[in-house]
Amino acid sequence: MEFLVRMKVAFPGEMPESDRAELRKREAERASELASVGVLVRLWRVPGESANWGIWAAADATALHESLTSLPMFPYISAKVYPLARHPNDPLPGEPADGAATSGS
Amino acid sequence: MEFLVRMKVAFPGEMPESDRAELRKREAERASELASVGVLVRLWRVPGESANWGIWAAADATALHESLTSLPMFPYISAKVYPLARHPNDPLPGEPADGAATSGS
Amino acid sequence: MEFLVRMKVAFPGEMPESDRAELRKREAERASELASVGVLVRLWRVPGESANWGIWAAADATALHESLTSLPMFPYISAKVYPLARHPNDPLPGEPADGAATSGS
Amino acid sequence: MEFLVRMKVAFPGEMPESDRAELRKREAERASELASVGVLVRLWRVPGESANWGIWAAADATALHESLTSLPMFPYISAKVYPLARHPNDPLPGEPADGAATSGS
Amino acid sequence: MEFLVRMKVAFPGEMPESDRAELRKREAERASELASVGVLVRLWRVPGESANWGIWAAADATALHESLTSLPMFPYISAKVYPLARHPNDPLPGEPADGAATSGS
Amino acid sequence: MEFLVRMKVAFPGEMPESDRAELRKREAERASELASVGVLVRLWRVPGESANWGIWAAADATALHESLTSLPMFPYISAKVYPLARHPNDPLPGEPADGAATSGS
Amino acid sequence: MEFLVRMKVAFPGEMPESDRAELRKREAERASELASVGVLVRLWRVPGESANWGIWAAADATALHESLTSLPMFPYISAKVYPLARHPNDPLPGEPADGAATSGS
Amino acid sequence: MEFLVRMKVAFPGEMPESDRAELRKREAERASELASVGVLVRLWRVPGESANWGIWAAADATALHESLTSLPMFPYISAKVYPLARHPNDPLPGEPADGAATSGS
Amino acid sequence: MEFLVRMKVAFPGEMPESDRAELRKREAERASELASVGVLVRLWRVPGESANWGIWAAADATALHESLTSLPMFPYISAKVYPLARHPNDPLPGEPADGAATSGS
Amino acid sequence: MEFLVRMKVAFPGEMPESDRAELRKREAERASELASVGVLVRLWRVPGESANWGIWAAADATALHESLTSLPMFPYISAKVYPLARHPNDPLPGEPADGAATSGS
Repeated sequence: MEFLVRMKVAFPGEMPESDRAELRKREAERASELASVGVLVRLWRVPGESANWGIWAAADATALHESLTSLPMFPYISAKVYPLARHPNDPLPGEPADGAATSGS
Repeated sequence: MEFLVRMKVAFPGEMPESDRAELRKREAERASELASVGVLVRLWRVPGESANWGIWAAADATALHESLTSLPMFPYISAKVYPLARHPNDPLPGEPADGAATSGS
Repeated sequence: MEFLVRMKVAFPGEMPESDRAELRKREAERASELASVGVLVRLWRVPGESANWGIWAAADATALHESLTSLPMFPYISAKVYPLARHPNDPLPGEPADGAATSGS
Repeated sequence: MEFLVRMKVAFPGEMPESDRAELRKREAERASELASVGVLVRLWRVPGESANWGIWAAADATALHESLTSLPMFPYISAKVYPLARHPNDPLPGEPADGAATSGS
Repeated sequence: MEFLVRMKVAFPGEMPESDRAELRKREAERASELASVGVLVRLWRVPGESANWGIWAAADATALHESLTSLPMFPYISAKVYPLARHPNDPLPGEPADGAATSGS
Repeated sequence: MEFLVRMKVAFPGEMPESDRAELRKREAERASELASVGVLVRLWRVPGESANWGIWAAADATALHESLTSLPMFPYISAKVYPLARHPNDPLPGEPADGAATSGS
Repeated sequence: MEFLVRMKVAFPGEMPESDRAELRKREAERASELASVGVLVRLWRVPGESANWGIWAAADATALHESLTSLPMFPYISAKVYPLARHPNDPLPGEPADGAATSGS
Repeated sequence: MEFLVRMKVAFPGEMPESDRAELRKREAERASELASVGVLVRLWRVPGESANWGIWAAADATALHESLTSLPMFPYISAKVYPLARHPNDPLPGEPADGAATSGS
Repeated sequence: MEFLVRMKVAFPGEMPESDRAELRKREAERASELASVGVLVRLWRVPGESANWGIWAAADATALHESLTSLPMFPYISAKVYPLARHPNDPLPGEPADGAATSGS
Repeated sequence: MEFLVRMKVAFPGEMPESDRAELRKREAERASELASVGVLVRLWRVPGESANWGIWAAADATALHESLTSLPMFPYISAKVYPLARHPNDPLPGEPADGAATSGS
C-alpha cells in the first residue's frame, strides 16, 4: 500500500550546526536504505520550508510507522500521513503492494 | 518541474449517470495521453472520497494549468497545486525537468 | 489494517422521505454484510449530526475504497479516512490484518 | 457511553530518555488496568505522529476525565474528546453503557 | 451528563414564511416539553445568526441524539455537540446526572 | 447579559506542583466569590483537557473582562468569549441582566 | 456596550436586480434610523467583498440581535459578532453604554 | 484611509511585572500621541484576552506600519490588519482620509 | 498604495458557455483599461483553479473597491484583499502611490 | 516561472538587537543581489507584522528553494510558496521565464 507523507522538520534552536549536519548525514543513509527496499518511493522538498513530501510504500500503517520512526531525524519531525488507494488511470501499472523492493521502473 | 496536485471532483446532482460514465471514459483517455508524454507521473484515489492525489510534471505552472484544464472533467474539478523541489534523498535520480516523456523507470 | 472513517451524509433537499427510508434500509443490509466479513468493525453516530464514526478493516486503502463505495448511500456521503497503526497498549491482541471475518470477541 | 479520544503526546525537549522510558512503562501498566475494567476499549497509533486514537467507555464525561487524567503521561498529553452515540448498524450489539468490564466480545 | 450544543438553523430559500412560522411554533412546544423533563437546561441565541447555544442533559450521547432529532426543525439544523464534565468550582452542586426533571434551582 | 466563555489553562512547564496547587486553591476561592454574586453562573471541565466552559453574567464585556482578569490563574489562561442573547425558548425565565446575585433557581 | 460585527451579504442568484436595489434602499433607510439613535456607530465595506465591518452599540447581545434582525437585508446576511470591552487607551472617553444616541463626538 | 487592526500581546514569561508596567505606561503615552493626530481612532479590549481591536487611520499601509511599529509594545505584538473601504451607510460623513487630526466628532 | 488580491471565479452551473465567453471578453477589455491607468499592476492565474492573484494599486481601499466592482465578472467573484506596505528591499523604487498610470518600468 | 512567497520572520527572543541589525543588513545586500539577477521581482511588508509578500522568479521550485535558503535570515523564516501561472490579462507581456535579469520594465 502507498502513502503520501508530509514531514516538517524543526531542530531545537540551540542544536549546534555540527549535530544537525551529522543528523542529515545519517538521515540520508537511512533514506537510501529505505529506498533500496522500496519503502521510500519518492521524496521532494517543499520549497521555502524545512519540510518534505514523500511517497512511501508499506504493508500497512503499522509498518509505515516503524519505517518513519526509524529515521534519525524522527524526534524533530512532525509528519502527516495520507493513505493512497490505487487509481485506474495511474500510469504505474500494479503498484508494489507492500513496499517490497522493485526495480523502481 | 514536478507538482503535487489534489483534485476533488463534484458532478452536479442532476447529471445523469450516462454523462458521468462518458466523462470518466474521456478522462481516462486524456490521462493516458498525458501519462504517455510524462506530464501525468502518478495518480492515486483518496480513499472514501471523489478525489485524487497526483504527481504531475510540467515546464512551469502555466504549462501545468494548460494540462489540467485540458482534462474533460476539469469544469467539475477543484484542484490545489503544491510545487515540489528536488530533494537530495529522492530515490529517483535527476527527475524529468519539464514533463518530457521518459521511460518512467 | 484498520482505518478510522468519519462519514457525513447529506441527501438532496428534494429527495422524498420514502427514497431516504429505502436507502437507509439497503444501507443497513450492506453494513451487516460488511460487518459479517469483518470489514465494518464498529460504527457510532455523531450525536446531533447526520454523520458517523466507524472502525473499518481492509487489506489496504484500495480495498477500503471499494468497500466504502459499495455502500448504497455513498453518492450522498463525504468521508474522511484516518489510517490506524497498531499500538502496543491496544486491549485487542493481534487486530485482524485485512478485515477477514473474525469472531469479533 | 463510548468516546473517541485523540491524544497528542509532547514530552519537554530536555526530558532525558530514561524518564520517557519509565513514563511509557507506567503508562502501559495503567492502560492495561483501564482495559481490564473496560474503560480503554481500543487504542491505535497515528502513523508518523506521537499521537493515538482510542475508544474509551465511561459513565459520562466526568468519569472519562478522571480516567484520562489518571494516565501517568497526562501532563504531556493534549486530548480531544468526541462523544459517540449508538448506531443501529453497529456490529457490536448493546455496547457496554458505562465502561463496566466486559468480556470484550 | 450535560452537553453544550451549538445549533445552526438554515431553512431552504424557497420555504414559505408560513411554514417557517409553523415550524418555529412546534419547535417552541417541543423545547418546552424537553425543558419540563430537564433535558433542555438553558438556551441562548447567537446574536446576529440563526443559531443557538444550549445546555442539554441526557444519560449519554445516544439519548441526547434522540432528543435533538426529536426537534421539528432538526432536518434544517446542523449541530455540534461538546461533552461537559463536572467542575469542582461549578456553582450548581451535583448537576442532574441524566436530564431527569429537577426543580431547575 | 450572559456570556459563554471557553478557557484553556497552561502553566509554564517549570512551575512547581506546590505553586500550581496554591493557585488552584485561590482560583476556587475567587470562583466561589464570583458565583456568590451571580457573575459565575455555571462551570464545566472540557474532558481530557486543562480547559473549561463557563456561563458568566456581567453588565457588559468590560465588566466581564474585569471579572475574568480577577482570576488568580488569569496569567496562564487564554479565554474565548461568546456573547449570548436571550432565546424565547430558554427554560430560565428572565435571565439575570447583569450578573447581580440571584437565588440561582 | 459596543460590538464589532462583520456581515456577509449573499442574495439568491435568481433575485432580480430591481429587488436588490429596493432592498438596498430600505437597508440604507433603516441604517440611518439605527445611526440616529446611536445603535449603528460606524460602518465600512470590506474591499472586494459583499461584506461590511461595523461598530454597533446596544444594551446587550439581546438588544443587538433585535437591531440586526430589523435590517431588511438580514435574511440574506450571515453576521459574526465580536464583543468589545473598554480600553483605557481608547481615544473616545466614556463610550456610550447602551447605544443611546449621543452627539457622536 | 481607515484600517481595522487586531493586536494580540504576549510578553515573554520571564519578563518581570515592573518591566511590563513600564511598557504599558509608555504604550499609553504613545497611544495618546497617535490619538491626538487622528491615527488611533478607537481602541477596545477583547474581553478575556490580552488583545485589542482598533480603528486606525493612515495615508496607506506603509504609514500604518510605521505607526504600529512605533508602539513600545510592538516587539511583543502580533497584529492582523484589515483594510476598510467607505460605506455609503456609514454614520460618520467623509471619514478622515489619512489620519490627519480631526475634531474626533 | 498597492494591494495583493486573490479572486475566485464561480459562474452559476446553468450559465451557457456563450455568456461566459462574452463575460471573459468584456473582463479582458476592462482589465486592459485598468492596467493602462496603473490600477491593475500584475495578474497571474492560480494553476488548476478558476482563480487569480493580482497586484493592484489605488489611493485607498475605497478606490480599490470601486475598481474591483467595475469588473464585469465581479458578481461571480469572491475576492480577498491583502494590504501591502512598502519594503526597503523592494526592487521597484518608489512604487506608484495611488495607481496613477506609470511607465510600468 | 514566477512564485508568490509569504515569509514570516521570527528571531529568537534572546537574540541581541545588534545581531538582528547585522542580519537585516546582510539580508538587504542579498536581496539586492537577487533583485539584480531578476530572482527577486517585488517585495512588500505585511503591515503590522514581521512578514512580507514577494514575487520571485526562478526556473523551477528547486531553483527557488536555493534562492530562498540563500537568504541570511532563512533560519528564522517560515515561508509559504504559491506557484503562479501566466494570465492572458497580465499587464506585463511575456513575463521573464526563469528569473533571468531583465530591464524590469
